Amino acid sequence: MAAAQTTREKIIHKGAELIHLKGYYAAGLQEILRKSEVPKGSFYFYFKSKEDFGLAIIDHFSSIIEALFRRCLEDRSIPPLERLDHLLNSHLSMFRKTGYALGCPIGNLALELAGSNDRFRERIKTAIDSLISLISACLEEAKRDGALSIGADVSDAARFIFHGFEGAIMHMKVARSHEPIESFKRYLSDYLKGKPAHKKKSG
Amino acid sequence: MAAAQTTREKIIHKGAELIHLKGYYAAGLQEILRKSEVPKGSFYFYFKSKEDFGLAIIDHFSSIIEALFRRCLEDRSIPPLERLDHLLNSHLSMFRKTGYALGCPIGNLALELAGSNDRFRERIKTAIDSLISLISACLEEAKRDGALSIGADVSDAARFIFHGFEGAIMHMKVARSHEPIESFKRYLSDYLKGKPAHKKKSG
Repeated sequence: MAAAQTTREKIIHKGAELIHLKGYYAAGLQEILRKSEVPKGSFYFYFKSKEDFGLAIIDHFSSIIEALFRRCLEDRSIPPLERLDHLLNSHLSMFRKTGYALGCPIGNLALELAGSNDRFRERIKTAIDSLISLISACLEEAKRDGALSIGADVSDAARFIFHGFEGAIMHMKVARSHEPIESFKRYLSDYLKGKPAHKKKSG
Repeated sequence: MAAAQTTREKIIHKGAELIHLKGYYAAGLQEILRKSEVPKGSFYFYFKSKEDFGLAIIDHFSSIIEALFRRCLEDRSIPPLERLDHLLNSHLSMFRKTGYALGCPIGNLALELAGSNDRFRERIKTAIDSLISLISACLEEAKRDGALSIGADVSDAARFIFHGFEGAIMHMKVARSHEPIESFKRYLSDYLKGKPAHKKKSG
């Protein structure tokens, strides 16, 4: 049983790598199995269907990203708003390692799969909702500490941050540069510090 | 020559429809040709390669979206900041027609293709840069009119808006709902009106 789990996990790990690189449909099952060093015929021993495999891949990416969000946003040793900065910097370090080429696996799969498969869509929606909740909880804490005085809807603000971050990652992937994320960081920082578009920075 | 162009355009139109629905790799060439009612063998008469076809598809989507951006953001009959709102509402109307299922074709292709094909990536980057420039020009106008007093970098603010919008569209596609765009609109409006996160809306 332990060995069976190891093989299943090996397929998921290699599959996730290839899907992150190429996308879900472009990553062929045969290539995934070859890279996993698993015999071609045994895929359906570990997964009921290609869809079942896809769901496992989404869960795999979600759990990695959610763990990173938790590690940064629930770190009680630093103030809440610094944790957000820490989250962006942690992502930047990861993105740097792959030359800013791969982007957010959940964002990639969201756009590739949500239109064509409802089970994938629902699973990705759940993952995104969890990430937004973690940002929301961090903002709530900042609000309790008096570091942030958002009016009615902290979850709207959390969505705003999540949307901007995903869009910046998309732009980074296309520009192959850290600049879109840096630009997002500057604006987010001004926004959270209460420097709106209206307030003159200079002149 | 006119007939040849018509056939080429027919392939691009049907191809674009299918690619918007399914993604680039999931939309098979045979299905595109069947829907275009073009004989299977004649694809390479109109396109040098599948890549050449992909570039034509990116150009097709870019020109449609850029035209919508220009129609809204260069409409001198209304104040610049209202044009941004008009742009978001125009997109919402389009998204509504397809049940919020398809999202932004350029965003979709950005995440699907940028990691694996540099010519696609460069072409999508050019498209995104054009859209950000149009937002930037609109913000510059608002600044000249005194409706907006952004400090040093209007193009940073334009990027911030573009990033948020693309992220909100991604969320919309996954949630199959207009709510993420509505949430983005509320926050963008507060941001542009100078209501930062810091300022209390209530209590």
